[in-house]
Amino acid sequence: MTSSPSLVFLTCGGTIEKIYQPNTGQLTFDQSHISDWVKQFRISQSVSVDVVMLIDSLEMNDSHRETLARTVANTPGNQIVILHGTDTMVESAKCVMLHCREDQTIVFTGAMVPASQQQSDAFFNIGLATGAVQTLPPGVYIAMSGQIFPANAVQKNKSLGRFESTESDNGTLRITKRKQTGGFR
Amino acid sequence: MTSSPSLVFLTCGGTIEKIYQPNTGQLTFDQSHISDWVKQFRISQSVSVDVVMLIDSLEMNDSHRETLARTVANTPGNQIVILHGTDTMVESAKCVMLHCREDQTIVFTGAMVPASQQQSDAFFNIGLATGAVQTLPPGVYIAMSGQIFPANAVQKNKSLGRFESTESDNGTLRITKRKQTGGFR
Amino acid sequence: MTSSPSLVFLTCGGTIEKIYQPNTGQLTFDQSHISDWVKQFRISQSVSVDVVMLIDSLEMNDSHRETLARTVANTPGNQIVILHGTDTMVESAKCVMLHCREDQTIVFTGAMVPASQQQSDAFFNIGLATGAVQTLPPGVYIAMSGQIFPANAVQKNKSLGRFESTESDNGTLRITKRKQTGGFR
Amino acid sequence: MTSSPSLVFLTCGGTIEKIYQPNTGQLTFDQSHISDWVKQFRISQSVSVDVVMLIDSLEMNDSHRETLARTVANTPGNQIVILHGTDTMVESAKCVMLHCREDQTIVFTGAMVPASQQQSDAFFNIGLATGAVQTLPPGVYIAMSGQIFPANAVQKNKSLGRFESTESDNGTLRITKRKQTGGFR
Repeated sequence: MTSSPSLVFLTCGGTIEKIYQPNTGQLTFDQSHISDWVKQFRISQSVSVDVVMLIDSLEMNDSHRETLARTVANTPGNQIVILHGTDTMVESAKCVMLHCREDQTIVFTGAMVPASQQQSDAFFNIGLATGAVQTLPPGVYIAMSGQIFPANAVQKNKSLGRFESTESDNGTLRITKRKQTGGFR
Repeated sequence: MTSSPSLVFLTCGGTIEKIYQPNTGQLTFDQSHISDWVKQFRISQSVSVDVVMLIDSLEMNDSHRETLARTVANTPGNQIVILHGTDTMVESAKCVMLHCREDQTIVFTGAMVPASQQQSDAFFNIGLATGAVQTLPPGVYIAMSGQIFPANAVQKNKSLGRFESTESDNGTLRITKRKQTGGFR
Repeated sequence: MTSSPSLVFLTCGGTIEKIYQPNTGQLTFDQSHISDWVKQFRISQSVSVDVVMLIDSLEMNDSHRETLARTVANTPGNQIVILHGTDTMVESAKCVMLHCREDQTIVFTGAMVPASQQQSDAFFNIGLATGAVQTLPPGVYIAMSGQIFPANAVQKNKSLGRFESTESDNGTLRITKRKQTGGFR
Repeated sequence: MTSSPSLVFLTCGGTIEKIYQPNTGQLTFDQSHISDWVKQFRISQSVSVDVVMLIDSLEMNDSHRETLARTVANTPGNQIVILHGTDTMVESAKCVMLHCREDQTIVFTGAMVPASQQQSDAFFNIGLATGAVQTLPPGVYIAMSGQIFPANAVQKNKSLGRFESTESDNGTLRITKRKQTGGFR
């Protein structure tokens, strides 16, 4: 348990971290860029950064999600931004929701266009998550498409390439009530 | 008065909007880029954009600030992000605080490095403000240096090139109590 | 036959023109960017631009190459830069060599990293080709890896991700002797 | 005296090397970026890089130009690209012309928009110079505005923001006849 607020960035890879590899012609991972980005963003408070994994979220299985959830639960900080691929972001967020601590505000984000690409939404999205994580009550959220959604009321609309609320009153933020299980602690 | 939340971006120019002019060798304004950025950020909710002015915030006088405050008070939306130069951002935020509506959450942001320049904090900062404006109670705030500050408890530290709290418990967000004057309504 | 020099850019697509498509997660083509780039490069002489095709050079067949060669032979200008994928650039250059006019200097270029990606070699390469096309005698050349090669003495080394001379005295530019067939004229 | 061709990049600073300094709000120099750029450009031949000075070319005096000319004359390589501010590029090129060796091809370039800024002509221009330096006979040239000019027949048109020929048949490259003085050797 930590007594003072502390901002943490965890990365799981995802499109946001991908860069072009000339020899294969593919977008893939070399290393996490989150430490460089934190400097570029001129964040003045104390920040900790941890690379949990660097994979495409379509390749994440239950074991990967458990690793992520365990890392979150064991992180002293209570304001946690998680970079993650968009395709299974909701699934991972729900897994983290089952295991995180009661004092933790956790915001997942990612990008539809890699940060290494022109016209990317990456830096805006990390900002969106960083703004939300410092202002929302404990719980698990997804910050994408310019909005903040509770993790249990959001889905990715793949054909439109955006996240949307699963609630009928689309767009209004509700504070999620987390089921507190305390799995890994 | 509006019944539903609505996201508004106002721009006053500032470093964030500056671009390089080859003929003069100076960084200055050509036009606002906020509409292009909103597309790049892939914001899916309805957004309105308004260019209030495009000037260096060191050149803003009381009349400019009054124009801004009047524009805010007359804007139907209640979630308002304002792009502004950093040098007099606090002064403008305090002016807006005197005149805005009780239902409005207003977040100022800007950049230490122009968005047109590599290694800019601009897009992260706009994201930070956009996350904060949707999650904070009504009031006037500044989102810079990775943090969100109430407008009446923040200053720019010019030698360090960052914003910091004027409160002794630096870094903890307090909800501002706005003095409600209703000047322009 | 043209009496005065005239700079022409033709594009066949290739990696240099690819951009990221969020819905598929693939790098592919939307439209040619060469006209925008010519403005950005601040080229002051008269320039003509033509989009011949927009495809991955691995998908080019004899018919595509014939279309390209015919377009070149029918182009009034005699200084021609061709944007092309790197994988079959040499093959296309040899095909163009068989059919181009005696007064034409033709320089192929492309990129190992798309222009839309950070850390791209694209703009440098287009510059390299534009410098070479204005200074070399008629013939067909490839401008890649910081060098200019005659089209009949160069290969792509795929494992090293670069172009290299097939001559023993690697790196010395020789002026190509074109076999003049006049196929399409 | 060197027996084999060798590519050399010298930098004198100029707009091309400037970056934004947040604390002053000015574009100025921190360090040369030419070594990073050479990597980005994927140049495969052997390259040497030397930072001669990092200043605005308006601040260059005769002593600065003599330092540059001496450096060029003492450089073993015979293919030399020089990054330089645009305002006094022609003056420096003429000074270098008086002192360089008979075997040296020297191409000056720079940028109207800093490389650190979006929409820069910098990388194209360096490519233009690198293409020209490998294909032109010994002499001193300026590669700007998409063209290559002999150093003794070019001027910067400040109102149009471009370089242009001082000859009546504007746009045709003529090979410069250098006055060979051998000053520093």
